[in-house]
Parts: sequence; C-alpha cells; structure tokens
Amino acid sequence: MKKKIKKINAAILIIGNEILSGRTQDKNVAFISNWLNSKCGISVSEVRIIPDIEKIIVENILYFSKKFNYVFTTGGIGPTHDDITAQSISKAFKVKYEYHKKAFKILEKYYGKKKFNNGRKKMAKMPRGAKLIYNPSSAAPGFMIKNVLSLPGVPSILNSMIENCKRYLMKGLKVHSRTLNIYTVESNIAKNLEQIQKRYRKFVDIGSYPFFRLGKIGVAVVTRSTSLPKLKKVNKELIKLVKLKKIKILKI
Amino acid sequence: MKKKIKKINAAILIIGNEILSGRTQDKNVAFISNWLNSKCGISVSEVRIIPDIEKIIVENILYFSKKFNYVFTTGGIGPTHDDITAQSISKAFKVKYEYHKKAFKILEKYYGKKKFNNGRKKMAKMPRGAKLIYNPSSAAPGFMIKNVLSLPGVPSILNSMIENCKRYLMKGLKVHSRTLNIYTVESNIAKNLEQIQKRYRKFVDIGSYPFFRLGKIGVAVVTRSTSLPKLKKVNKELIKLVKLKKIKILKI
Repeated sequence: MKKKIKKINAAILIIGNEILSGRTQDKNVAFISNWLNSKCGISVSEVRIIPDIEKIIVENILYFSKKFNYVFTTGGIGPTHDDITAQSISKAFKVKYEYHKKAFKILEKYYGKKKFNNGRKKMAKMPRGAKLIYNPSSAAPGFMIKNVLSLPGVPSILNSMIENCKRYLMKGLKVHSRTLNIYTVESNIAKNLEQIQKRYRKFVDIGSYPFFRLGKIGVAVVTRSTSLPKLKKVNKELIKLVKLKKIKILKI
Repeated sequence: MKKKIKKINAAILIIGNEILSGRTQDKNVAFISNWLNSKCGISVSEVRIIPDIEKIIVENILYFSKKFNYVFTTGGIGPTHDDITAQSISKAFKVKYEYHKKAFKILEKYYGKKKFNNGRKKMAKMPRGAKLIYNPSSAAPGFMIKNVLSLPGVPSILNSMIENCKRYLMKGLKVHSRTLNIYTVESNIAKNLEQIQKRYRKFVDIGSYPFFRLGKIGVAVVTRSTSLPKLKKVNKELIKLVKLKKIKILKI
C-alpha cells in the first residue's frame, strides 16, 4: 500500500446482463465496498450495473475513471463471446487489446499446452500496459490499467483475488462506524436525529434503518466518521436520547 | 395495465448510503427486475446506486427519466432526516413538495390522530401531482410522478407493494428465457456459442455463466428472446452441440 492521503473514493461498475435481468443476485457490491472501507479507508461513491454492450462499457469507464480515484469492474473477463470487458476498456483508453505475456504464461502453465485452447487464451488478452491482479483460485488474472481494476464476476473467485488489489491502492482515512440497535420506530426519534445530524453535519453521517427481528420492530442507527472522537461523542448523545425516551437497546 | 406496445425499458435508482457502504446487501434490484421481466415484459437497462445527496438524486432522476420509459427508485421515503427522495424528485421536476391529501388521510387513519407525529406526517409529503402506490404492509404509500415510481427500501415492504405499480405501466413484449445447465467449462463451448450468437444476433441473446455445484464445474447457458420460436430453435442447436461434444446435461 502506498502513502496515506486524505479522502479516497471509488466507483464500482457491475457488467453483466445476468445481474440486470434479475437472474443473478449481485453480491460483489457489498463485498468490495466493505473490503475497501475496512481494509483501505476507501469509500464507494457510486455503483452502476450495465449490460454487456461495448459502447455503454466504454462510456461508463471513461466517466467513472475521470470522476473517482478508483474504478472497480466486475464481470465480463471470461472466455466466452459475451465477455467483452477487457476489449471495451482497451477501446476506452485507446490502447491495444493484446496478449499479456505473463498472463499467457500463467494460463498456459495452469491448463497445460494441450488444453490451452482459444477460449482460454482469450483470458490472457488485456489492454496494453495492464498490470496483473493475481487469481489464486482459478488462475485467470484480473488486471489494472490507469485507475481501473478489473475483476471477474463469480463472487468466490473475486473474493479470493481482492487482497491482491491492495498493492495498487492508496490508503485513505479509515471510516469508523457504530451501529446502535434500538426497539422503537423511526418516527419516534426522527426529529432528534435530525437535530444531532445538523450539529455534526461536517463530521459524522447518521443513517437510520428500520429492522424487524423476532417479531419486534426496531431501528438501526448507523453513525460513520473518519474522526473516532467525534463518532464517540455523537454516540454518547444517542445513548442519552435513547435513555431519555426510555427506549430499549438491543444487546447483540 | 395499458395497451401492449413493443419494447419497454426501465432503470432502477437505488438511493441509500447503507447500500453503497456495503452495510446492507441490496435485494431490490433482482426482485424488481424479475418482476418487471416476468409480469410486465419490461426489461431493466441500467441500475445505479447513489448516496442520500440531493444534488446527485436530482441529476440521476432527470437523466434516467429522459432516457428510459420508466424509472424505479428505492429508499429514502421514510420519516427521518436522511430520507430525501421525495423532496429531491420534487426539485428535479420543479414541482412543489407538499402534503398529498390522500396519503395524509391514509397515514392519519393508520396511526390514529394522537400518534400521527411530524416524522410520520413527513411520509405524506410528495411532489405535487403524484399518484399513490398503495402499501398493504405498513401504510406509507409510494408514489409515481411523470415516469418515476418511488418505492421504499425495505425489501419486505417493497415486495408487498410491487403489484400496485402495475396499473401505471404499459405492457411490453414478454422476454422468454431458457437455461441449459451443462457439465463442462466455458472455454470448451466458447467458440460454438459465439457462432450461434452471431447467426441469431438480432433475435436471441446468449449468455454463459459458470457454476459450481456439488463439487462439479458447469456452465449455465441462458438464452433470452421476445420470439419463442427463435428461442426454441437456438436451444435445439445448443442441445445438438452438447450431444456432439458428449457433454452431460444437468437435470434439475
């Protein structure tokens, strides 16, 4: 990991008709976002889910790449005709889409020369100048070019590769987070939360999310901040408020 | 449902810091998309997940609203300070953000006059001219204005309301879908799939998705088309290919 600087953000581009159609439930957004938050101090500012259409991929890569510190893509780097992420990114950055020597070697070794057919060879094709993101579970590497990191769509494979992204990322300020689970309804505390939020607007984000657990209705009050002291202060105020209103806290 | 016309598309705007941060796993995209596909013949063309920031909500509402037939939003219509979807949509369409009389009555009746506090009253505030989407589970209605339909973020509540969106939607051509699960690896069939896809480019979409089941590796070949005869024809070709290659089909 490189030098610590201040606020670093990222965007995620989920590429795949199967997610858009609802056939497959995306799990990569939550995983990548949690990992970036907790391990790198990077927060995700926007996510888009788009189809396997070159023009659309190119547009979104260029837009995200300019706007955010990092862009993560998932999906579309396999061996079949609908895997067009690598060539689309090449097009976006106007670089050649070609065999990456090291990726080619890795895959050739993994499959053996005889079984290294054209479909598999395709997985070694990347934008010229790409750096590899190693894949400990199924060999085919992801890659990074400029500020874009491309990972596969299958969650188990993506999860196994995520730590290998770290070397390419600057570390941001860690965002601390606390969750206070209480037995009440949102409207009972809405006004008070708003007042606290107003006072700490610059330092702490307060979110409130209803939940149902064991037949009871509750609210998760989630606070997030890069300043741990400010976060603790807000949580003290929240506890005070909860006691004043005689609201039960859910012990977890 | 209104008159049948040809291809109808939609976009989904997921509004909420809790999804972006990875704290909460989104389940609404897959649910809405499946419902639109199977019940309304509407396909989802793009999804964005954005934070609870007015300016960003306004921009995205305007962009999606112009580009697609329908826009579904989820999240941000509850009683707390971070629920700003309704006022943001009002701003986007330059209409007043005000109490919706019928929504006010529904909520007043549901909570009773005494317990109908300001937080709860907030849930009756909507863009002027909005039509209600009734909520059978927790009363607070969603709304539709222009081509934008706003639903809550809690999946169980959203799911209970979705059928009440139907009356506002035009019906598109149903997209038929078949899945062929086979025991092979993608690269074994990549070239053939590409050839079939090329021949049917205009009529059938072919997607291929690796899976792992009971320790075995397989591929789900998903075909989608508005033409059932064309879809059947492609699937006949796929079966032929699979037999020729002596690939086992997974019976489900």
